[in-house]
Amino acid sequence: MSHLQTLIAETQGAFRADPGKAQAVFASSSRLEEGFHSVAALRDHRVTVDEPASLGGTDKGPNPVELILAALGTCQEITYRAYAAALGIPLDGVRVELEGAIDLRGFFAVDDSVRPGYQGIRGTVHLTSSAPPDVLEQLRQAVNAHCPVLDILANPVPVTIDIAIDRAVGKAA
Amino acid sequence: MSHLQTLIAETQGAFRADPGKAQAVFASSSRLEEGFHSVAALRDHRVTVDEPASLGGTDKGPNPVELILAALGTCQEITYRAYAAALGIPLDGVRVELEGAIDLRGFFAVDDSVRPGYQGIRGTVHLTSSAPPDVLEQLRQAVNAHCPVLDILANPVPVTIDIAIDRAVGKAA
Repeated sequence: MSHLQTLIAETQGAFRADPGKAQAVFASSSRLEEGFHSVAALRDHRVTVDEPASLGGTDKGPNPVELILAALGTCQEITYRAYAAALGIPLDGVRVELEGAIDLRGFFAVDDSVRPGYQGIRGTVHLTSSAPPDVLEQLRQAVNAHCPVLDILANPVPVTIDIAIDRAVGKAA
Repeated sequence: MSHLQTLIAETQGAFRADPGKAQAVFASSSRLEEGFHSVAALRDHRVTVDEPASLGGTDKGPNPVELILAALGTCQEITYRAYAAALGIPLDGVRVELEGAIDLRGFFAVDDSVRPGYQGIRGTVHLTSSAPPDVLEQLRQAVNAHCPVLDILANPVPVTIDIAIDRAVGKAA
């Protein structure tokens, strides 16, 4: 057994014995700086976000919808590596190319019948492997059934965002 | 009119005149390095992704589901700034705190009735503004109706990912 295969088996055993151990909470704290430039803190990590000049920003980083694609691509890759290890399938490399299409009339409120988010995401997972095609098809199905970000995008997630007002002092409307 | 307000009005006019100009495509190219460490390229920007040690990684960056929260928080912030400008509502600051809950039995295939993605995302938008509460409520409704990432998470996105196999040379299964 590889180290990763052992880790996955041990984690599965721990979660079966005590489902409470499987309950995870992830968090983000972000703040808008100048213009559309924002910085998100995720534990000790920082991600810089901005819009390109064509969308009114200063291009200090990727924009939020690009981060969505990065999250999906990297989640697919991690899930391929984890499931290849768990299933004992050889996998020498994995990379993902994705494209997402947005009709910006949605965000800009030009046509309220147009959704503001992605109309669709398409792409390709490139696997480097000596395993036969039917085994890689089995791997693909296991990955797509268990990839967290694919589930988050393909299926609705309940989102509740409250609002809190800090009064600006000494500024007139 | 502020510079941003003018930019938004001009963009709306251009998209009304020619909806073809509103069709945007965003792209991501990512590749798994060692372990669960991956790097995503988004135009000229790079985002480093990894899992924390508790999930088998080396913590070189946020993980994919944390990127989802960063995308939502920063997209809310950008959309608040854009709509505050468009509607002429004073907004001196905006920051977002988010939390997402995942039952890891989904990802680890311990219980296939458990979804692998977020069961829910909750949080708070903190606005610094001198505007009256009813005006900020109007702003909140406009933002939540037009925020691309909120739409992407709260509603299903069609995702199609093909698979391509590069044969590993000189490696046995």
